[in-house]
Amino acid sequence: MKTKSEAKRQAILAVAAETFGELGFERASMSEICARVGGSKATLYNHFASKEELFLTVMFQASEHEFEAVHRLLDPDIGDVAGALRDFGRGFLAVLYSPQVTAARRLVIAEAHRSELGRACYALGPGKGDAALAGFLETAMQAGKLRPAEPRIAASHLRGLLEAELLERFLFGVLTDIGAEALGPMVERAVEVFMRAYGPT
Amino acid sequence: MKTKSEAKRQAILAVAAETFGELGFERASMSEICARVGGSKATLYNHFASKEELFLTVMFQASEHEFEAVHRLLDPDIGDVAGALRDFGRGFLAVLYSPQVTAARRLVIAEAHRSELGRACYALGPGKGDAALAGFLETAMQAGKLRPAEPRIAASHLRGLLEAELLERFLFGVLTDIGAEALGPMVERAVEVFMRAYGPT
Repeated sequence: MKTKSEAKRQAILAVAAETFGELGFERASMSEICARVGGSKATLYNHFASKEELFLTVMFQASEHEFEAVHRLLDPDIGDVAGALRDFGRGFLAVLYSPQVTAARRLVIAEAHRSELGRACYALGPGKGDAALAGFLETAMQAGKLRPAEPRIAASHLRGLLEAELLERFLFGVLTDIGAEALGPMVERAVEVFMRAYGPT
Repeated sequence: MKTKSEAKRQAILAVAAETFGELGFERASMSEICARVGGSKATLYNHFASKEELFLTVMFQASEHEFEAVHRLLDPDIGDVAGALRDFGRGFLAVLYSPQVTAARRLVIAEAHRSELGRACYALGPGKGDAALAGFLETAMQAGKLRPAEPRIAASHLRGLLEAELLERFLFGVLTDIGAEALGPMVERAVEVFMRAYGPT
């Protein structure tokens, strides 16, 4: 059962998503969003302490289902671990490097040292994702499909390899649109290296 | 022979380094730096178009020699490639995750999408570093100490592995001070994975 406050929160999020989409982060103001939602500014700030927080909630809400769908590709019963990691890698990078998510990620990074926002986003985003990936790898290790190793570290290494050709260029704003065609070969290379290092001995 | 303009530039950089160190980036203003250097604001802005540019120049000037020293550890004549990569990895992470360099890197990332600053910094920093690393790996491949592969991609993979346990936590502001003791084992693990994947067959 939704409370009145929760209904208001959802209404704010829907309007904010529309406003950010239309005006971009810089030009969309809390005043503008407030005017479109209706009600007082105090109510708006009661739900979201800042424009950054509101934006990030909108972003997470939009990408959460996509990331969850990607993680479902990591079926622990699957026979072909390398194949599952390739499917996961392609899906994961496609979501992570989508314009919406890169914009949100850049904003978090810029704000991270100033607030508790970074810590919250880490727990909700990469922290959660890495834990799920580590769980899959651990199952594969137990089934003898990967050599025994520390699953959390193996998950970090896989993520590091998957992003190796993209991350630095993204961070410095040098990376422009990457199509799905470019992602495929990068993921192939990363998973090949991972399997050489972590494959069964 | 230094021109008068170059001498002025160096004087500005010395004062700016002191001012940023004393007040931090936010509180150090161009007016304050100008007052300490002496001379007109026009002259200051003639040398550095913005506070960001001035800060980054100071940062690069401070870390450039350290990064160059780290890259000199990659001696192409060395017999033990894994050992050289471990020495390089420890030195590289120690510089890259020093408080000074992380502050500069965070600033570039935050500013990258707004200006040409990101592109310039990429070329001067990671672009240059990755090229040097790729050169070393290529020599090792030619000597049969690593399997044949694309050197630029192998360099990206090595860097991705070296930073795998740190980067995401740094970006989200979750990472606090890492001591040299913590870096050692991380580098061991990364180089072990790299050598399993790229070692001679």
